[in-house]
Amino acid sequence: MKSVEGKIGRIVFGRLFEDEDLVEAVTQMAKERQIKAGFFALIGTLKKAEMGFFHKGQYEPIAMTERLEIVSCIGNISVKERDPVVHAHITVSNRKGKVFGGHVLPGCIVAATGELVLIEAPDSGLQRKLDEKTQLYLWAIDE
Amino acid sequence: MKSVEGKIGRIVFGRLFEDEDLVEAVTQMAKERQIKAGFFALIGTLKKAEMGFFHKGQYEPIAMTERLEIVSCIGNISVKERDPVVHAHITVSNRKGKVFGGHVLPGCIVAATGELVLIEAPDSGLQRKLDEKTQLYLWAIDE
Amino acid sequence: MKSVEGKIGRIVFGRLFEDEDLVEAVTQMAKERQIKAGFFALIGTLKKAEMGFFHKGQYEPIAMTERLEIVSCIGNISVKERDPVVHAHITVSNRKGKVFGGHVLPGCIVAATGELVLIEAPDSGLQRKLDEKTQLYLWAIDE
Repeated sequence: MKSVEGKIGRIVFGRLFEDEDLVEAVTQMAKERQIKAGFFALIGTLKKAEMGFFHKGQYEPIAMTERLEIVSCIGNISVKERDPVVHAHITVSNRKGKVFGGHVLPGCIVAATGELVLIEAPDSGLQRKLDEKTQLYLWAIDE
Repeated sequence: MKSVEGKIGRIVFGRLFEDEDLVEAVTQMAKERQIKAGFFALIGTLKKAEMGFFHKGQYEPIAMTERLEIVSCIGNISVKERDPVVHAHITVSNRKGKVFGGHVLPGCIVAATGELVLIEAPDSGLQRKLDEKTQLYLWAIDE
Repeated sequence: MKSVEGKIGRIVFGRLFEDEDLVEAVTQMAKERQIKAGFFALIGTLKKAEMGFFHKGQYEPIAMTERLEIVSCIGNISVKERDPVVHAHITVSNRKGKVFGGHVLPGCIVAATGELVLIEAPDSGLQRKLDEKTQLYLWAIDE
């Protein structure tokens, strides 16, 4: 593991509303509040989920169209080419309590509500850069 | 998304003991330490679980009576009519590694131990108020 | 619940690389950065998983040898006999979105990448001590 450290900044509580796209909403909030890096966790409900499984260089989609609880959604924010980007993974449960999960793709649409808590790192210098091997934008940490 | 921000306060580490009710124990600790808002995560074991799936205005219960690992429990604390209340979602795993999940209801009873970490937000002003549409107490954020 | 509180310290962002063992990598980072206590969350991918279910005083292993997403990994760091130790639980998902989980044992091996965020508690005094009843090293909190 390579790592960087920084000071803790603000804590943000965000409420997501019906029909908001999860990734879009978190990204938009990060831009508005000028958050460069941080950790977040989110619980709530979805009316549909779009989750990815990384395989041979791309995310294969797993789509669910039923009402679901977001039993956990954990993610981070870091800067890619000046803008904050969201990377998050999610688990969702259905009416029988069965759980499904994956990488959060666009298309995770909030049902009744979503509750996000974000902890900011204002000065870590964390950035994403293109990784040649995986062709993903990964954390570029040199120390 | 609508959001509020605040300063970070204390960090609390809490150990839950056998036969404690998860929601009750976290709520009690929040009252004793006068925590108005915050994020928490908890791992440990349960001897039974009571989880909810929100459907048509109420939580349908999903009950499990076997020994389970708490593979994740993520939640928050906010104030509802002056008192701190807990909202948390959970995933649990059985002896075969199968995972079940939902909204944490009263009746999640600790087995060997539970380990909670809570990060406090002392000045966010976050509050829950009755939402007419869902009849749930949701975060009332106006900005 | 019994609890201790402290101040918040640093935030650390760590990137895990292919073939690193999850517990080993987090433990090593904690030693290098002299972290005595904290909370962390981690997402990423695994090429194999080794998870435990606590039963009759020991962890029964659940082994998976396929490529998996780490949909959540939540844990903490605390001191046991002067050294920082990691306690974490994990959920992983396969290509169909099915989720499995348990206690993180040695043998969770990173595939493409892992992204860790850790929040430090420098002065909490948190320690693990042998618990006679379970024969586990649990948080020794007296207050």
